[in-house]
Amino acid sequence: MTRTVDWLHDAVELIDQTRLPQDEVVLRIDDVPTLVDAIQRLAVRGAPALGVTGGYGVVLAADAHDPVDDPERFQALVRTIREARPTAVNLGRGVDLALAAATSGRDAILAAAHALRDDEVEASWSMGILGADLVTDLVGRPATAMTICNTGGLACVERGTALAVIQELHERDQLIEALPLETRPLLQGGRLTTWELARMGAPHRLLVDAAAASVLARGLADVVLVGADRIARDGCTANKIGTLALALAAQYAGIPFVVVAPESTVDPDTATGAAIAIEDRAGDEVTAVRGIQIADPATRVLNPAFDVTPPELITAIVTDRRVVRIGRGDRLDTVAVGDRRAPAAPSRTVAN
Amino acid sequence: MTRTVDWLHDAVELIDQTRLPQDEVVLRIDDVPTLVDAIQRLAVRGAPALGVTGGYGVVLAADAHDPVDDPERFQALVRTIREARPTAVNLGRGVDLALAAATSGRDAILAAAHALRDDEVEASWSMGILGADLVTDLVGRPATAMTICNTGGLACVERGTALAVIQELHERDQLIEALPLETRPLLQGGRLTTWELARMGAPHRLLVDAAAASVLARGLADVVLVGADRIARDGCTANKIGTLALALAAQYAGIPFVVVAPESTVDPDTATGAAIAIEDRAGDEVTAVRGIQIADPATRVLNPAFDVTPPELITAIVTDRRVVRIGRGDRLDTVAVGDRRAPAAPSRTVAN
Repeated sequence: MTRTVDWLHDAVELIDQTRLPQDEVVLRIDDVPTLVDAIQRLAVRGAPALGVTGGYGVVLAADAHDPVDDPERFQALVRTIREARPTAVNLGRGVDLALAAATSGRDAILAAAHALRDDEVEASWSMGILGADLVTDLVGRPATAMTICNTGGLACVERGTALAVIQELHERDQLIEALPLETRPLLQGGRLTTWELARMGAPHRLLVDAAAASVLARGLADVVLVGADRIARDGCTANKIGTLALALAAQYAGIPFVVVAPESTVDPDTATGAAIAIEDRAGDEVTAVRGIQIADPATRVLNPAFDVTPPELITAIVTDRRVVRIGRGDRLDTVAVGDRRAPAAPSRTVAN
Repeated sequence: MTRTVDWLHDAVELIDQTRLPQDEVVLRIDDVPTLVDAIQRLAVRGAPALGVTGGYGVVLAADAHDPVDDPERFQALVRTIREARPTAVNLGRGVDLALAAATSGRDAILAAAHALRDDEVEASWSMGILGADLVTDLVGRPATAMTICNTGGLACVERGTALAVIQELHERDQLIEALPLETRPLLQGGRLTTWELARMGAPHRLLVDAAAASVLARGLADVVLVGADRIARDGCTANKIGTLALALAAQYAGIPFVVVAPESTVDPDTATGAAIAIEDRAGDEVTAVRGIQIADPATRVLNPAFDVTPPELITAIVTDRRVVRIGRGDRLDTVAVGDRRAPAAPSRTVAN
């Protein structure tokens, strides 16, 4: 299995991300309650991966109760998928997309879920290609790339966003080294990104988040590549906590800072970064690491989940359909969204 | 016991820092081998605390073998103290200082060790007072102060450096809140600074290092206070990894960034920051936390122990004998070192 989530032999297959990096366990799931459990305990995470998982979940619901003959029990089962993580927008979107085909029966649902999967795969390939082209243009030679959090295939279906660019550079022999930050508090960089980089055979060294500024200032990297949770119309980018610090460090070091995210991340309803609410998460994410207490559990904690980086600190935003070079005056509203994505090289596309 | 290390009833008493924050254990040590073991397993850490521990260790050696009657065995025992941590400069200095009194006998050694202890205590009080005066001058009202690593009494004898300023502000009712960073990889902020802040009753919230820039940019702090491992003649300051990122974030947020360290930290033999070598430490500090594996142990790691912050990013350097306001043009070579320290208020001095 090379994908985070896929449909194989009439079942959903998922890499259990809670077991990484220690164990690579592929879950084969053919009933809805087991899938709901996997979603709830974060065996699968990342917006695109959750969307595709939701879509395939509707197929499992249709296998249990025929959507045409027994719509009530089918719909009740589908609801349990959507409610597995109520705040995960993409999960609900994936469910809705598959559900729209329900009146045409189970095979139509499966076709809709496949289409969503393929769309995510195509988007990742396109971001990787456009991003790698940009990095080569900006750096002019093989590059060392710093990144934060996990933005790879594990968060998507395959390849990912910022990490897709690193993978593409590596496959073009244009990557000297990746420098993933561990990404406290949940350590997605240390646990997941290092695992993906090792799996793709890309040279890399892990850093604590606090080391980024110094390592960049010492000239040890050529470019910073990050993902995005939401991009406002003015280019303000909400992403994992630590991204703003990384952007300030890149500016200080005089190297490009590039945001890589699907076009769907650009939110036309959000005018500026100031309109993005900052979610504060539970303190025990900070006072304990993987179940081990590292500070008194009574300690009060300020644990913002993400931060907002203003466009002045961003060199370019790369989506699956365009490259917006903010650093030389482009804006999201002056660069048209492309009709087509960058196509993957034929030899590298994955068969359906 | 209110001091990290002290001499009480003919023995050394130490807070066992390896047990914090879970347990507050005071070790009572009256023989050299036990003291050497405590030093080696980092029960006591921090340059000033190690110096004083070394001084009292020489007293324990003199209790075992009279330095006048049996100088060879006395000196052999003293060597084991110095060699407990060969790279800890202050440990050797503390040993030498006490040893210089050895020909006058055991009580003279004890007096020399007491003098070193009292000197460190005085220096901490002075830094706290000068620093708190400066913060009040810069901020103009009660302040929220962000800090990194552990720069409190645990690293010294009592009060500390940057944390001494925070304690002084708190005692003057001029502290709104302290915002300690957890300080990966060794988590001195999460484990030790929160413990000290709780102990002094100062309101505080713990943050992951990566949250600092965003929290400062949101206007949630008024000043950043950090310690220093070494300060070059040009003001470049080597300190715990993450300090440079914090200085960049303070500049971006438009708030003062203040270095607090004893005058002895200013190294006349180091002209510029470029001359300061960066020590890379072992990767397992990053791939495991308190014994729990968080990344594949085979992962390559880049783990610089400290970074260098240039004077352009520093508002002021506060020592126990002067305040150098770099932000308004002062330099280390244009501001005289004071003859006297700021005296602690009489009611707050600690009896010998």
